[in-house]
Amino acid sequence: MGNGEKLKEECGVFGAFSLSSLVAFNIYYGLQALQHRGQESAGIAVYDGEKVNCIKGLGLATEVFNKGNLKVLEGKMGIGHVRYSTTGSNDIVNAQPLVANFRKEYMALAHNGNLINAEELRNQLEDEGRIFQTTSDSEIILHLIAKNFQKGLIEAIQETMRQIKGSYALVILTDHKLIGVRDVNSIRPLCIGKKGDTYFLASESCAFDVIGAKLIRDVEAGEIVAIDKNGINSFRLEVEEKKMPCVFEYIYFARPDSVIDGKSVYFTRLEMGKRLAIESPIEADLVVPVPDSGVAAARGYSLQSGIPMGEGLIKNKYIGRTFIAPDQKDRETGVKIKLNVLKELVKSKKIVLIDDSIVRGTTMKRLVNLLKSGGAKEVHVRISSPPVKYSCYFGIDTPTKKELIGARMSVEEIRKAIGADSLHFLSIEGLKKNIGLESICTGCFDGNYPLEVSKGKSKYLFEKK
Amino acid sequence: MGNGEKLKEECGVFGAFSLSSLVAFNIYYGLQALQHRGQESAGIAVYDGEKVNCIKGLGLATEVFNKGNLKVLEGKMGIGHVRYSTTGSNDIVNAQPLVANFRKEYMALAHNGNLINAEELRNQLEDEGRIFQTTSDSEIILHLIAKNFQKGLIEAIQETMRQIKGSYALVILTDHKLIGVRDVNSIRPLCIGKKGDTYFLASESCAFDVIGAKLIRDVEAGEIVAIDKNGINSFRLEVEEKKMPCVFEYIYFARPDSVIDGKSVYFTRLEMGKRLAIESPIEADLVVPVPDSGVAAARGYSLQSGIPMGEGLIKNKYIGRTFIAPDQKDRETGVKIKLNVLKELVKSKKIVLIDDSIVRGTTMKRLVNLLKSGGAKEVHVRISSPPVKYSCYFGIDTPTKKELIGARMSVEEIRKAIGADSLHFLSIEGLKKNIGLESICTGCFDGNYPLEVSKGKSKYLFEKK
Amino acid sequence: MGNGEKLKEECGVFGAFSLSSLVAFNIYYGLQALQHRGQESAGIAVYDGEKVNCIKGLGLATEVFNKGNLKVLEGKMGIGHVRYSTTGSNDIVNAQPLVANFRKEYMALAHNGNLINAEELRNQLEDEGRIFQTTSDSEIILHLIAKNFQKGLIEAIQETMRQIKGSYALVILTDHKLIGVRDVNSIRPLCIGKKGDTYFLASESCAFDVIGAKLIRDVEAGEIVAIDKNGINSFRLEVEEKKMPCVFEYIYFARPDSVIDGKSVYFTRLEMGKRLAIESPIEADLVVPVPDSGVAAARGYSLQSGIPMGEGLIKNKYIGRTFIAPDQKDRETGVKIKLNVLKELVKSKKIVLIDDSIVRGTTMKRLVNLLKSGGAKEVHVRISSPPVKYSCYFGIDTPTKKELIGARMSVEEIRKAIGADSLHFLSIEGLKKNIGLESICTGCFDGNYPLEVSKGKSKYLFEKK
Amino acid sequence: MGNGEKLKEECGVFGAFSLSSLVAFNIYYGLQALQHRGQESAGIAVYDGEKVNCIKGLGLATEVFNKGNLKVLEGKMGIGHVRYSTTGSNDIVNAQPLVANFRKEYMALAHNGNLINAEELRNQLEDEGRIFQTTSDSEIILHLIAKNFQKGLIEAIQETMRQIKGSYALVILTDHKLIGVRDVNSIRPLCIGKKGDTYFLASESCAFDVIGAKLIRDVEAGEIVAIDKNGINSFRLEVEEKKMPCVFEYIYFARPDSVIDGKSVYFTRLEMGKRLAIESPIEADLVVPVPDSGVAAARGYSLQSGIPMGEGLIKNKYIGRTFIAPDQKDRETGVKIKLNVLKELVKSKKIVLIDDSIVRGTTMKRLVNLLKSGGAKEVHVRISSPPVKYSCYFGIDTPTKKELIGARMSVEEIRKAIGADSLHFLSIEGLKKNIGLESICTGCFDGNYPLEVSKGKSKYLFEKK
Repeated sequence: MGNGEKLKEECGVFGAFSLSSLVAFNIYYGLQALQHRGQESAGIAVYDGEKVNCIKGLGLATEVFNKGNLKVLEGKMGIGHVRYSTTGSNDIVNAQPLVANFRKEYMALAHNGNLINAEELRNQLEDEGRIFQTTSDSEIILHLIAKNFQKGLIEAIQETMRQIKGSYALVILTDHKLIGVRDVNSIRPLCIGKKGDTYFLASESCAFDVIGAKLIRDVEAGEIVAIDKNGINSFRLEVEEKKMPCVFEYIYFARPDSVIDGKSVYFTRLEMGKRLAIESPIEADLVVPVPDSGVAAARGYSLQSGIPMGEGLIKNKYIGRTFIAPDQKDRETGVKIKLNVLKELVKSKKIVLIDDSIVRGTTMKRLVNLLKSGGAKEVHVRISSPPVKYSCYFGIDTPTKKELIGARMSVEEIRKAIGADSLHFLSIEGLKKNIGLESICTGCFDGNYPLEVSKGKSKYLFEKK
Repeated sequence: MGNGEKLKEECGVFGAFSLSSLVAFNIYYGLQALQHRGQESAGIAVYDGEKVNCIKGLGLATEVFNKGNLKVLEGKMGIGHVRYSTTGSNDIVNAQPLVANFRKEYMALAHNGNLINAEELRNQLEDEGRIFQTTSDSEIILHLIAKNFQKGLIEAIQETMRQIKGSYALVILTDHKLIGVRDVNSIRPLCIGKKGDTYFLASESCAFDVIGAKLIRDVEAGEIVAIDKNGINSFRLEVEEKKMPCVFEYIYFARPDSVIDGKSVYFTRLEMGKRLAIESPIEADLVVPVPDSGVAAARGYSLQSGIPMGEGLIKNKYIGRTFIAPDQKDRETGVKIKLNVLKELVKSKKIVLIDDSIVRGTTMKRLVNLLKSGGAKEVHVRISSPPVKYSCYFGIDTPTKKELIGARMSVEEIRKAIGADSLHFLSIEGLKKNIGLESICTGCFDGNYPLEVSKGKSKYLFEKK
Repeated sequence: MGNGEKLKEECGVFGAFSLSSLVAFNIYYGLQALQHRGQESAGIAVYDGEKVNCIKGLGLATEVFNKGNLKVLEGKMGIGHVRYSTTGSNDIVNAQPLVANFRKEYMALAHNGNLINAEELRNQLEDEGRIFQTTSDSEIILHLIAKNFQKGLIEAIQETMRQIKGSYALVILTDHKLIGVRDVNSIRPLCIGKKGDTYFLASESCAFDVIGAKLIRDVEAGEIVAIDKNGINSFRLEVEEKKMPCVFEYIYFARPDSVIDGKSVYFTRLEMGKRLAIESPIEADLVVPVPDSGVAAARGYSLQSGIPMGEGLIKNKYIGRTFIAPDQKDRETGVKIKLNVLKELVKSKKIVLIDDSIVRGTTMKRLVNLLKSGGAKEVHVRISSPPVKYSCYFGIDTPTKKELIGARMSVEEIRKAIGADSLHFLSIEGLKKNIGLESICTGCFDGNYPLEVSKGKSKYLFEKK
Repeated sequence: MGNGEKLKEECGVFGAFSLSSLVAFNIYYGLQALQHRGQESAGIAVYDGEKVNCIKGLGLATEVFNKGNLKVLEGKMGIGHVRYSTTGSNDIVNAQPLVANFRKEYMALAHNGNLINAEELRNQLEDEGRIFQTTSDSEIILHLIAKNFQKGLIEAIQETMRQIKGSYALVILTDHKLIGVRDVNSIRPLCIGKKGDTYFLASESCAFDVIGAKLIRDVEAGEIVAIDKNGINSFRLEVEEKKMPCVFEYIYFARPDSVIDGKSVYFTRLEMGKRLAIESPIEADLVVPVPDSGVAAARGYSLQSGIPMGEGLIKNKYIGRTFIAPDQKDRETGVKIKLNVLKELVKSKKIVLIDDSIVRGTTMKRLVNLLKSGGAKEVHVRISSPPVKYSCYFGIDTPTKKELIGARMSVEEIRKAIGADSLHFLSIEGLKKNIGLESICTGCFDGNYPLEVSKGKSKYLFEKK
C-alpha cells in the first residue's frame, strides 16, 4: 500500500483506430482505466489527417486533460500512455507518447517495458551521428525504425525487433496505421479490442470495458498487428518465441477485472489465496486483507479455509498522492493516515493477515503492530507470492537488492522483523504448477530471466552518466 | 456511489486543547480522518496566545493545507471543520470555522447540523440592528452567544441552546477554553478523546485513532463540555433530553471504524446485513456489495445466509471528484468509469446485490444493468435501510421529495424501475428492534422528526431570498 | 520605485448604478484604471435584484476576475474595491467590498481611508454584544449603519458620520441605492461620473475615461450622494466642513490623467517641477526623471530651467510584483533589475535627478550611485515635495518615524547619505502658495493633521492585540 | 503598443562560462533583461559537471523560475533563451534551449533567427533516416552539428554554417565549452561580456548591465567564439561576410540602453527623431510620444524642432499580457484600458504624435481618435521609420503582406485611414545616410534581403504540413 512498499509497474499504453469516430475521449477513458499502471504523467497523441497533435503533462489523466484540450486532439486514430516516472528533474521530457517526424511521415510511439541492450544500441546510434533528446530507451526504438524505414514500415519494425532486447509492448501511430507490437517473450501485456468499426489496443482488457468495447484477443509473443482501413494484419518475426509473461501482472499490477493471455486476474489471485491456505493452513478466527492489494487472495484463503473474512483494516479514501507526512519520529501516524484498525472486529482474535507481496517489509511491520495494538491476539501473515529476491530488468521498478527484505533475510528472520506470529509465502512451485502459470517469468523470485542480463546493468543508465 | 446518488453529510468538526503541544498538525490529521463528512471546504483556527489565526479554503484538507501554512497556525488550542457545501457563488464565505471578536475575546466556532428556527432567530437579530456576513445558520449561534456574553460564557451558551432549535454538534474556541456542545436530541455525533495532556473533540472516533488518542466518551444530549487547563467540566441544560441520534450515521455517513454513542458502526452495518438476510432470504450464488457503501452489510448478509461474497463490481481507485463526464447520450460510460463488472465472476450466477440505500435510483438501475450485461442470470437487490421518503431538516442534504424514488414509488415499482429480479429494503422495525437502535431519528423514512418542522421550511433560506 | 520606497495608498473604490445596463464589466475596467491604488486584493459586489453577489480575491483585478466570474455578477448596480493590504495571514478576510445582511436588506460597502477613533467605537460596539469578523475598521461603519437603520438609511449614515472620525471615501450598495460618502475634511478623493443613464462613483476620474463616462463633479466634504432610479440626491451633515484633502494624491498617488477637486494631477506635478526649478536652480546638462514617479515634475523642471530632459534611467517593463531578489550582499542588482542607466547619455554630464519624494532613502542612494557608475560627472537631486517627517493616520501606509529619513536627518545629512552633489526638497510654502494648494493636509510634512490624533495610536490596532 | 500592432522579435539568447561561480542566477537576470525579446517561453540549461539539466516553461522568466528550481540548475556554465512563440498546441515542445546527447557529449543550443533553407535541409536529414521531435528549425542545426561531429566541434559548426542559410545568433553549451555563433550577415545581434573570471554572451548588452558585467565586443559576422577555461578563441568561415544587421533592432526591438555593433540604440532613435523633424517639419504646440515605443524618437523630434514634448498619452502600468478584452463593438475601450489621453494637456493644441512604426494601422487610428476626442485641434503623425511593405524571413514575425497597411496603401491613403491631419514616414535614405546605418538590412521596407528568398516560402513550414 505505502509508497516504496509495492513494486511499481512502469507504464500503460492504449491505442484506437476508427473509420468513423473521433478517438480522443475514448483514449482518455482508456487511460483512466489503466491509471494504476502509472500516475506520474499522461499523454495522448492523435493524427488529425495532416499532422500528429500531442498533449502530455505530469499527473493523472484527470489532471492533464480537460474537455478543452481533448477537443483539440481531433482525429480518428491515436495513442495514449500513462507513466510511472523514475527520475526527478526532467520528467516531462521523458513523458510519452514520443512524437517524431521523418521522411514526411509522422510517427508517435508509446512503450511499456524496458530494453536491456539500450546502452549498446544508443552508443551505436550516437556513433552514427544521431542525437537523443530524452533519457528514455523508447527513443532508441524510434531511431531504429527511422533508420530502417526505407525498407517499409513493417520491415523496419521487424528489423528493430531483431536488434532490441528486453520487454516491450508498443503502440505506434503513423499517418495511416495503428500498430501494436509485443516482444518475443510477451513479457508485458497487450491486447486487442473492438467496438463497431473502431479497433483498440490496450495494456489490459479493463480499458475496453469502460468504453464498451469487447476483448478480441491478446497480441501474441513476437507479433506485430497493423490496423488500417482494411482491418487487422498480423506479422511475425521468423524467430522462435518463448512465452514468459511477467507473473507480477497477475500477483499485483493488473486490475482484477482484466483478463491477460486468457486468464482472469481476479480468479488467478483467488487461486493463489486458496493455494496459500493449502500450503500453510492455520486455525484462526478471521482473515483480514491488506486493502486493496490483498483482497482477492484473502477471499480465496477464506473460501478454502472456511475462516470468515472481515475488514479489519479500513482505508481512508481521501488520501491522495500528496499529503503532509508526519515527522520521522512519528512514523506510525504515516500508516494510520491511510489505514485504521477496526478494533471492535480484531479484538482478542487470531488473525490471518493477507497481502500479495512484501518488498521492504516496513509497512507490513507497521500493519502487524497496528492489528496487535488494536487488540489482536495473534497475527499470522500469509503472502500470495514467493519472496522477492532479485531486481527486475524488464519494466518493473524494484528497489536495490539490499533493500529487498526477501534478499537479505530468511523467512523466519522476516517473521521476527515484522513481528508476526507466523509467516508463509506462496511457493514458486505452487504458483507455477497449481495455479497453472507454467510459462511465466519468475525472475524476481529466482533470478531466471527470459533473456540473459549483463552484470551491473541498470536500466536508468542514461540518467546518471 | 455516484454524485447525487447518496445522501450527503454536511460537516465534520474537530477540536484540540493541549497543555504542552502545538495542535495544528493533529487537527489536520483529524480533519483528514473526517474528510468523508465533507469535501468542499476545510478550515483550521488556532489561538496563538494573543489572537485566533484561521486558514480556510475550498477543497480537501490535503489541498487547503501544507507544511508552510500549518506552521503559521501556531498554538496549543484550536478547532477545525470540513464541509460539504451546498451553494455556488459564495462558498468560501460560508466555510468554517467562523471567527468573531467581541468584548476583547476571540471566539471561533465550527458547527455540524442545521437549525430549523434559523429564519425567526435571524429576523429577530436583524431587527436588533445586527448584521450578518454569511448565509450560514452557524453565524446566528455566534450572535446569540455574543449577545448573552455578559452573563458569562457557559451561561451564554446555555441561553443560546434554549433559543436555537435543530441539530448541532459544536466545537467552540475561546481565549481560554475549548468547548463542545451537542443538541438536546444528540442528533449529530460528537465525542471526546485524550492523548497525554491533550484533549480532543471530534465528530467521529476514527479521528482519534489516526493521532493515537483514545476515545473517552461521547458528549451527551444537551451537554456542554468545557476543556481548560483544569481539565473537563460538564454543564447541562435544565431541560429534558430525548436522545434521537441520526440513523444515517450508522447506515452510511460515518466511517466503519468509528464508534458512535457506544455502538460500533461496522458491527451495526454487519447486523443490518444479517437482519436483511433474515427478512428477505433468497437462494443465490453470490453476494456482491456496491463498493464501498455496501461492503459491511454484504458481509453480514453473506455470513447469515451462507452465500459466498465476491467482488463482482471493481472500483477505479484513481477517479477523484473531478473527471470529464461523458455525453448525456452515453450515460453508461459514466458508471463504468467508476465501476467495472467482473464478468468472469458474475457470469450465469444468481446475484444478491447489496447497498446501504437508494436515493434517486438511477445509479442502482445502471448497476443492475451492468451486472446483467456482464452475464449475471438474476440480480436480487437488498438494501440495508428502509426507503428514504422524507427530506431531512437536521443536517443532511436530501433531494426534494419528488426526486426521492422511495417517495414516488412502491417497492414493486422501484424494482421494475431498476430492473431487479427482486428487491427488499430493511424494515424500520428490523432496524429499531433487532439491531438495537431503539432511540434514533428515522425522520427520513417515516417523517417522525425529533422536533416539529414547520411546513415549507427550507434550510437554505438565506441563500435564496 | 522600489518596494518600501514609496508611500502606499491603501485603496481605490468604484460604484455604478444603471437603469438599463449590466455593470460588472464596467466596474472591472474601472478597477483596472484604479489599480495603482492597491494591488493586493480586488473585489466586486453586484445586486442582482434579489441579493448581493460578491467575488473577491488576492491579486490584481486581472488575476481575480475573468469573463466567467464577471458574468456571474449579473446586475445593474454594484461596487468594487482594490486594496493594498497591510497584514499577512488573514488578507482575504479583510478584502472588500464587505457584504452584510440585516433587516431583510443587503448592504455592501467599500472604503478608502482610515478611522482614528476605531478602537473606542469597536469597544463600544463589542460591549453591546456585537461581533466582528474582520480586523478592518470598515466593519465598524457597517455596524453603525445597521444599528441606526431604523431611522432610515440616510439618517443612519449621517448618524454614523457623526460618530466616526478620520478619513473615508465610501461607496455603499443597498437594495435600491448606490451611495457615495466623503468625510467632512474630504481627505480621500471621490468623484461622480455619468454615461447615458448610468451613474458612476470613483476614487479618481481616470476610471471614468476608460469606460467613456464623463466626470460630473467631486463629492464634497461631508456630502452624501444617493443615486437611485430618480437620479442623484445630495445630503449634508449639519456640521461645518473643513476641506483638507491629502496632498500626496497630487504628489504621487493619483494617476496623472486624473482631475481631483478641480485640479489636474499632471499639471499640479508640472507646476511642482517648475517651482522646484525656481526654488533651487542649478546649471546642469540634463534633467533625468526617476521613472515613472518623477516624470511630470522633471518635465516641469526642464521647461522652467531650459535644461534638456532625457531618459537617463531605463525601466524594465517586464518586472512585475514577484521576482527573485538577489542576495543581501548583492543589493545593487536589485535596483538594476528594474532600472538601468543609459551610460551613453549620462556620461560626463551634470545631471539633475528628479523624483517626487524620498521615504527611506535607500533607493535614491542606489540611483545616484547608478548614475555615477554610468559616468555622470555630478548628480543633483531635486524632490518635488517636502521631506516626509510624520506618520499618516488617514489612509496612507507610512513606515515608522525612525525609518523615515526625513525625520532622522537634516537635508544636508540626507544629501551625504545618498551621495548627491546637491539636494533640494520643495518647500511647504511653495507647495501651498505657489501651486495653489492652500487647503490641503500636509500632516506628513509638518504634523498638522485635520483632526487631533491621540498619541501612540496605530491604525492596525485590531491586528496585533 | 497593442498586440498585433508591433512587429515581434522572436528570441533572446544568453550564455555564461565561469571558472569560479555558479551561473544560473546570472542567466536568470540576463533573461529578465532580454524579456522584451520574447515573453512566451523561457528556459535555462546548465552543465553540472556530469550532465546538462534544463528547465523550461511557458511564460515570463519570473513565472518559469523560482529560487528552488534555479538552485537545482547547479553549474558554472550554461545558456538561456526567451521566446516569442508563434504556434498554438505544441508550444512547450518548441521552447529552448534544445538539449541533445550524442557520442557521450551533451549539447544544448539556443537560437535567435530563422533559416530560409530549413525545408531542404530537413528533407535531406529525414531522407538519411533522422528523426525530428520539434517543428523548430533550430533542431536542424543540432542534427548537422551531430552529423559532422567526428571532424571536431568547431569544424562541425563550420560545416553546419556552410549548409544553413538565414539568420542565426547561436549560443551552444557543450561539456567543455560555451560557444557563440553569428551568421555571415550578422543579421541578429550577439555580444560578449565579462565580469571577473566569467564570460557572458547575450543578444543585447543591457543584459550585461544588470549583472555588473562589461561589454567587451560584438561577435562578428560569420564568427565563432569558443569560451573555455583557457579564455576566448575566435574562428572564422573562409567565406566573405557581408554585414547586414536588422534595422528593426534599432527602430523598435532592442532596449534603448543597449549598444549593438558599436551604436547606442537610444541615440540612434534620437537621431531618427531629429532626422524626422528635418524631413517633415511642422508648426505645432506639443510633441506627444506613443508610450513606450515612440519616446526616444519624440525626444529627438522635440530637440530638433524646439516644440515642447509632453505626456499626452498616459499608460496603465498594471495591464499585463492577459486582460479581458471588451466586446467587438466596444473596441475603443480596448485602447483606453492601456492608454488614456491627458485631456488637460492636449486640449485645443496642434499635436505631433510620434511612433516608431505602423504595421496594421488600427491602433494608430484609435490613438489619433483618442487625442481628437480629448480635444486636440490637429494631430500630425510622424513615424521614425519607413513604411513596412515586405515580410521578413530572418527572424521577425511580420503579418502577411495584405495585413501590412504600408503594402496596401500610399502614404496619403494611410493618412486618411488613420484620420491624421498629416503623416510622414522617415525616408530609407534618411535612415541609411543621415543616421549612419549604411550596411543594414532594409528588407521589410524595400524587399532587399541579405540572401535570396525563394518565392512562397514560409518559415513555419513544419507546423502545417
